[in-house]
Amino acid sequence: MSDALRVGIAGLGTVGASVLKILRDKGDMLTRQCGKEIIVTAVSARDAKRDRGVDFSSATWFDDPVALAKSNNIDVFIELIGGDEGPARVAVEAALKSGRHVVTANKALLAKHGVSLAKIAEEKGVLLNFEAAVAGGIPVIKALRESLTGNTVSRVYGIMNGTCNYILTRMWDEGISFEDCLADAQRLGYAEADPTFDIEGNDTAHKLAILTSLAFGTQIAADDIYLEGISNISLADIKAADELGYRIKLLGVALKTDSGIEQRVHPTMVPVESVIAQVHGVTNAVAIETDLLGELLLSGPGAGGAATASAVIGDLADIAKSRPGFQHGPVFGTPAKALAPYKRAKMRSHEGGYFIRLTVHDRAGVFAAIAKRMADNEISLESIVQRQSAVNHPDATKTVILVTHETTEAAVKKALEGIVKDGHSTDKPQMIRIERAG
Amino acid sequence: MSDALRVGIAGLGTVGASVLKILRDKGDMLTRQCGKEIIVTAVSARDAKRDRGVDFSSATWFDDPVALAKSNNIDVFIELIGGDEGPARVAVEAALKSGRHVVTANKALLAKHGVSLAKIAEEKGVLLNFEAAVAGGIPVIKALRESLTGNTVSRVYGIMNGTCNYILTRMWDEGISFEDCLADAQRLGYAEADPTFDIEGNDTAHKLAILTSLAFGTQIAADDIYLEGISNISLADIKAADELGYRIKLLGVALKTDSGIEQRVHPTMVPVESVIAQVHGVTNAVAIETDLLGELLLSGPGAGGAATASAVIGDLADIAKSRPGFQHGPVFGTPAKALAPYKRAKMRSHEGGYFIRLTVHDRAGVFAAIAKRMADNEISLESIVQRQSAVNHPDATKTVILVTHETTEAAVKKALEGIVKDGHSTDKPQMIRIERAG
Repeated sequence: MSDALRVGIAGLGTVGASVLKILRDKGDMLTRQCGKEIIVTAVSARDAKRDRGVDFSSATWFDDPVALAKSNNIDVFIELIGGDEGPARVAVEAALKSGRHVVTANKALLAKHGVSLAKIAEEKGVLLNFEAAVAGGIPVIKALRESLTGNTVSRVYGIMNGTCNYILTRMWDEGISFEDCLADAQRLGYAEADPTFDIEGNDTAHKLAILTSLAFGTQIAADDIYLEGISNISLADIKAADELGYRIKLLGVALKTDSGIEQRVHPTMVPVESVIAQVHGVTNAVAIETDLLGELLLSGPGAGGAATASAVIGDLADIAKSRPGFQHGPVFGTPAKALAPYKRAKMRSHEGGYFIRLTVHDRAGVFAAIAKRMADNEISLESIVQRQSAVNHPDATKTVILVTHETTEAAVKKALEGIVKDGHSTDKPQMIRIERAG
Repeated sequence: MSDALRVGIAGLGTVGASVLKILRDKGDMLTRQCGKEIIVTAVSARDAKRDRGVDFSSATWFDDPVALAKSNNIDVFIELIGGDEGPARVAVEAALKSGRHVVTANKALLAKHGVSLAKIAEEKGVLLNFEAAVAGGIPVIKALRESLTGNTVSRVYGIMNGTCNYILTRMWDEGISFEDCLADAQRLGYAEADPTFDIEGNDTAHKLAILTSLAFGTQIAADDIYLEGISNISLADIKAADELGYRIKLLGVALKTDSGIEQRVHPTMVPVESVIAQVHGVTNAVAIETDLLGELLLSGPGAGGAATASAVIGDLADIAKSRPGFQHGPVFGTPAKALAPYKRAKMRSHEGGYFIRLTVHDRAGVFAAIAKRMADNEISLESIVQRQSAVNHPDATKTVILVTHETTEAAVKKALEGIVKDGHSTDKPQMIRIERAG
């Protein structure tokens, strides 16, 4: 039996408390599996007195997480503070520079400073593990970084925000409006008081930026992601999607095109018979498309104290199982110094199918005018659903739903601008991208 | 840059040739990711002259794989020979005893000798990696062995045989009989000339036995698996399942009960809205249920040269990234010496729902008699579908389909024996287990 592994934890919220409980309750099992004992020697949090349901009095208390990170009494620093700057960043940097391994669940920090932190870790020969940062306990980081070594990834996409998937699932399941679903999600603790970060796709974007780097061996470019949230999705969209054999999901998608890398987060129509269409509620799922393996899909709980703590413990166990001084491969799969520069693909040239929902005046010739705008932009149509309105007077409107074959986003936008200019449309046209999915 | 990693490959079939091609075509990428070059220094196969579409003339040819395994010219031995005894076993043992790391795709060998081989590997401080042995390129071994460290697994189940899933999918999709689907599968190369091993569940059982050991930290018990293949599944079953909201899949299931571990391979009804119900064709999927994470599902191609080679390369990269003399945790998650004895649960006490399809004489009182047999065995029914036959004469038969609530297998078997004894049934009753699935 080797010497014990000494762990310092900064941040004792839900995840931190869960990590402490697992280390307390499963010590024997972990010692047997890792070949050494894991001991929490130091902790830090904002409030020393709050009851967290677990005793950590044997660990040294630090008011300052940076002091903890540099302490000679730890081998591993677990950062659960959060935030892309401030104490989290300073403490992680300090820990790595002091030759401590780091485990973190902090997606915002990695999306912003991941590459520079990886450089420090690799120079120091220590591990920087962050399985918990993307899709909670789902081992997507390990899959990309280790299992898929040798594969050339063409696309990675997934449902990475439980709040959004919960809302979209309930809208579809129960026919409840976006606003009511959001209120319920807030009441149940699935959504924050200010839900903007989740709903508008920023949270998904952070996670996607990390996956993009791992998948394509490039620098992280979290600021270069096309972003569109789900607040614009109506029950009419959900119902129309259902009729046409699709589900609407908020997907993060990164793919390699001839012109560079395309990163986007937006509501997406996926075929109902795809596996990802069956990922319901707060569950997350990530699909990875490669040349050798084909499509690999991982799904599971993307959030929650225990699920996130599971990923932290897995990362910690990898460190415990390794001999001192050993480093298990580069942090982002490719050494940080060798990560290729990020080159952005032109988003408007994105090719795919599109769902279009139009509310138009119920007049003769309207559909012909719409069809002409589509044809003028060389867009061919896969499905057309036109609903006759009940009332037949000059103010009546009807709904026209179109599903296009593969075309470019630029063409669709031009056609829709034309339709609006023709004066037939009474509302802003709705456009939702369709994504191939396995 | 460290010294190159020297690899010997025994077995140059589809997977072996694919591994050689990947190492040739992706050498630069692998060197960058692993921090060292990977060189094939030795190969062995039955036929030195066959054209495999890849040049390996720079490697030393061995007629005898055991001589290759012991060669001083290799650091890693890749075993792609197959078979649970003979040269594969002798060569793997020889390699481990000579202090070489081993990568193998050989599920039969591991299901039979996995624990004794793991003991040798752990004593020698070398790695025995076998991601390719279960569900092809899907990283389920790594998930169980590394990512889920600290989790207590309650159940692992999955679709682990592409041939069976291809047949069941086509029966459902196209209404083609089992026999015709099998013939097609053979023509397309998805099934062997003698398909028994796949169709009757033995292949799934080997894979399940390996997962059971990893999931529950017990000795491997491949001979203690309840086995039932898919040759008994008719189109009538597929159609009835569809109507009731289920799909039929050949699942391998291992779970921990109070009385021990239950391992079984059989056709299973899964709810159509579960993710696993959407796993079609030759795709594999494995679900793992744990206390911390909840349910994790991994799906992807379970066979094929490139997909299997992807797992071999991933295993090889793990070795290349490690420093000499390093060992990354126990082979089966728990040290082989510490694996608990396998203790079998009583299968007849298995609790769950059951689908029952009966062909009975179309006479008065038959359904009452069936209902009484069910009630006598304390089985309550969730759904009942009874189809009136068109003809109404003494020889006419009708179909009765029952879905039970949770009950024991013993109770169902007793009820069915009673129904047969009553003389109402014209055929052997069909019974398919229903499995909860996320």
